Amino acid sequence: MQALVPMRREDFAEILNQQVTPDMPLVYLDNAATSQKPACVIDAVRNYYTHDNSNVHRGVHTLSARATDAFEEARASVARLINASTPSEVVWTRNASEAINLVALTYGASQLKEGDAIVLSVAEHHSNIVPWQLLAQKNGVELRYARLDADERVDEDHVAELMEDGKVKLVAIAHVSNVLGSTLDVPFVVDLCRKHGAKLLLDACQSVPHMPIDVQSLGADFVVASGHKMCAPTGTGFLWAKYETLDELMPPLYGGGEMIEDVSTTCSTYAKPPLKFEAGTPAIGEMIGLGRAAEYLMELDMREIHAYECELGAYLYERLAADVPNIRLYGPSPAAARASGSHASGLDRAALCAFTHPAAHANDLSTLLDSMSGIAIRSGHHCTQPLHKEALGVLGTARASLYFYNSPEEVDFFVKELNKVIDFFEEVAV
Amino acid sequence: MQALVPMRREDFAEILNQQVTPDMPLVYLDNAATSQKPACVIDAVRNYYTHDNSNVHRGVHTLSARATDAFEEARASVARLINASTPSEVVWTRNASEAINLVALTYGASQLKEGDAIVLSVAEHHSNIVPWQLLAQKNGVELRYARLDADERVDEDHVAELMEDGKVKLVAIAHVSNVLGSTLDVPFVVDLCRKHGAKLLLDACQSVPHMPIDVQSLGADFVVASGHKMCAPTGTGFLWAKYETLDELMPPLYGGGEMIEDVSTTCSTYAKPPLKFEAGTPAIGEMIGLGRAAEYLMELDMREIHAYECELGAYLYERLAADVPNIRLYGPSPAAARASGSHASGLDRAALCAFTHPAAHANDLSTLLDSMSGIAIRSGHHCTQPLHKEALGVLGTARASLYFYNSPEEVDFFVKELNKVIDFFEEVAV
Repeated sequence: MQALVPMRREDFAEILNQQVTPDMPLVYLDNAATSQKPACVIDAVRNYYTHDNSNVHRGVHTLSARATDAFEEARASVARLINASTPSEVVWTRNASEAINLVALTYGASQLKEGDAIVLSVAEHHSNIVPWQLLAQKNGVELRYARLDADERVDEDHVAELMEDGKVKLVAIAHVSNVLGSTLDVPFVVDLCRKHGAKLLLDACQSVPHMPIDVQSLGADFVVASGHKMCAPTGTGFLWAKYETLDELMPPLYGGGEMIEDVSTTCSTYAKPPLKFEAGTPAIGEMIGLGRAAEYLMELDMREIHAYECELGAYLYERLAADVPNIRLYGPSPAAARASGSHASGLDRAALCAFTHPAAHANDLSTLLDSMSGIAIRSGHHCTQPLHKEALGVLGTARASLYFYNSPEEVDFFVKELNKVIDFFEEVAV
Repeated sequence: MQALVPMRREDFAEILNQQVTPDMPLVYLDNAATSQKPACVIDAVRNYYTHDNSNVHRGVHTLSARATDAFEEARASVARLINASTPSEVVWTRNASEAINLVALTYGASQLKEGDAIVLSVAEHHSNIVPWQLLAQKNGVELRYARLDADERVDEDHVAELMEDGKVKLVAIAHVSNVLGSTLDVPFVVDLCRKHGAKLLLDACQSVPHMPIDVQSLGADFVVASGHKMCAPTGTGFLWAKYETLDELMPPLYGGGEMIEDVSTTCSTYAKPPLKFEAGTPAIGEMIGLGRAAEYLMELDMREIHAYECELGAYLYERLAADVPNIRLYGPSPAAARASGSHASGLDRAALCAFTHPAAHANDLSTLLDSMSGIAIRSGHHCTQPLHKEALGVLGTARASLYFYNSPEEVDFFVKELNKVIDFFEEVAV
């Protein structure tokens, strides 16, 4: 392994250089759950609170003007990151979950009805399943789940089959799976949706932080992502949709300040998007942090980030496959991902690996890696119980997930320590 | 005026000591819109991001355990501040608006129906009007508005009248008005609600930051507040309700991670409160900031804060009334507030004054106070258009609002500069 140099690791020095055990430095491989934040983002939030803190949109004084400008500039930064045609297409939410629920409770509740169907996949995050189940309980819409193919990717041909009867009005699928690491063949699914007159919602939580996303060329109708997975503070996320969709197909969900035009005791009129969906004082400082994170990612260049992560992710997969006996890795191999199906090509595997090992429960592996070796990985169902229980046939997996600041040396250390931990459990079992 | 010493002003030195005009230091009198944050809160957020940042609840590694502990300790701190019987009665929200909408979309949508009525007051913030209007559009519930009495307080006797026909199932009123500065006679309204079997929602945005609140003795069913008005980061707020109410009368609104117990493709079961209402990755760092703010307020002692603000607020009112010719002040005088109605006694006026002056539009007063004198006040309808247009007969007011770190010297400077600005407009008009 050579020439794989982590990007801007120094910007994360304060948290990454700490020791969580007396002997070992932190190795943070839990980036699919949440990323660390670079110093410039932490400083942007602090600077807001120490210099500009004020409520936005409704004040004429200096601090209010500064706060409003910075808050709306942040929206423009996110719009640039995803190439939205206008910042007005970016609706702030607390996280991607809220963005999906917002679509379900507005577009879903007003436009879908009994007799209509929604296609999800069995690999969806709970945030892209439960909102639709709640909707189905209310309006009788039918949920259909696409299965996995032989490579453990979402089977887009099954999506096509599920849409054949013309009842499907919405397809809601993750762009990149947070467990399988597989990437959806978006052009293929966009074509299906256009053919059948369905809308497409892309859960882009695991793609926006890791690859260039151009919502105008992507062809989806709704794109959601979480700020905290892309170098921004917690409590931040967004929904992107075309302005006409936001304006015409989504009634307001929350009422309150910011989202109104005029209020009287008898009736009210509402602001235009995006404010129509942003009742009450927003997460001003945190969205300013998200804007700074978007600028930071553009400085690094999403193409560079993606290229580095593809290589490092493949290295992680291949080292685990080659050097950890009896490990079971989930999702397509990097090679299978790149040549998946008949229609997709060049779809890279995300820089994460979910795995199990017969020697120990995933939670135990994770606990020991932390306490013995200072390595942070996640274990459990990763908010994808149907994927685990109904498709993969396991209750949980362990998952190591990378970001651009991770190094091949960390991957090497992880593989070495994982083998030690497995040896420990195998000896205990003897 | 003597012995009125601002509390812990040094904790806000970084933002308050700045000059927003070349000659004048910032005088921040816009606290009812949002408060400034003490250094300990800003540092707590920064410390989270530089040492403990991780997703919560689902991880076994060190950072995840630390983040989860700090996040749930923050909930316990807020529970202590308001004397909730258990932290499980505190549901995190983005702001008070979200908390009210959550009640409207869960309790309101599931428990109220056509034929039922809700009592609001004409003085409510849009956040406590529009959610009920949206609900009324869906389920036909009737909205009734209590008027103001002669002192420009919400007329609790009118609330009693509005409830006489037994149709009212919910009363939703602000504890303290953000424009009038008046305080609701809560025991009187609680008695009414008990008599008629109605629930009481208190919008406590302007009370929790400024006075001791004991939700167990208060007697309301729902209490909502915004963190950013009480020294905490933006993007924070909470709903308090009795555990049984959260558990039995409020179905989940958002689906996703954190709020589930088990998910399958065919059905799901939900976590118990408060997590039932907290889908997706929460605003972890910001809620830790809210917890630190709650601890800080308890260190200062809410009784001390309230006592100081009552005196400083009365001083502001009296100086404006005495020393600004032709000013129109809205809401009860401090004396009228203390002896309001037949049932209330000892209800203090909040430390804020909304006013108009015939010499100039409120926006113009506010703009010139900022640019000439570095004084930040707010102008407009303060998210209470019905109060302004339908009860007070004006389109907008100017409002100066104080917090415990404001000083009598700032009040004096404000009164002096306000007179200068008024003189300027009066000369221009001649």
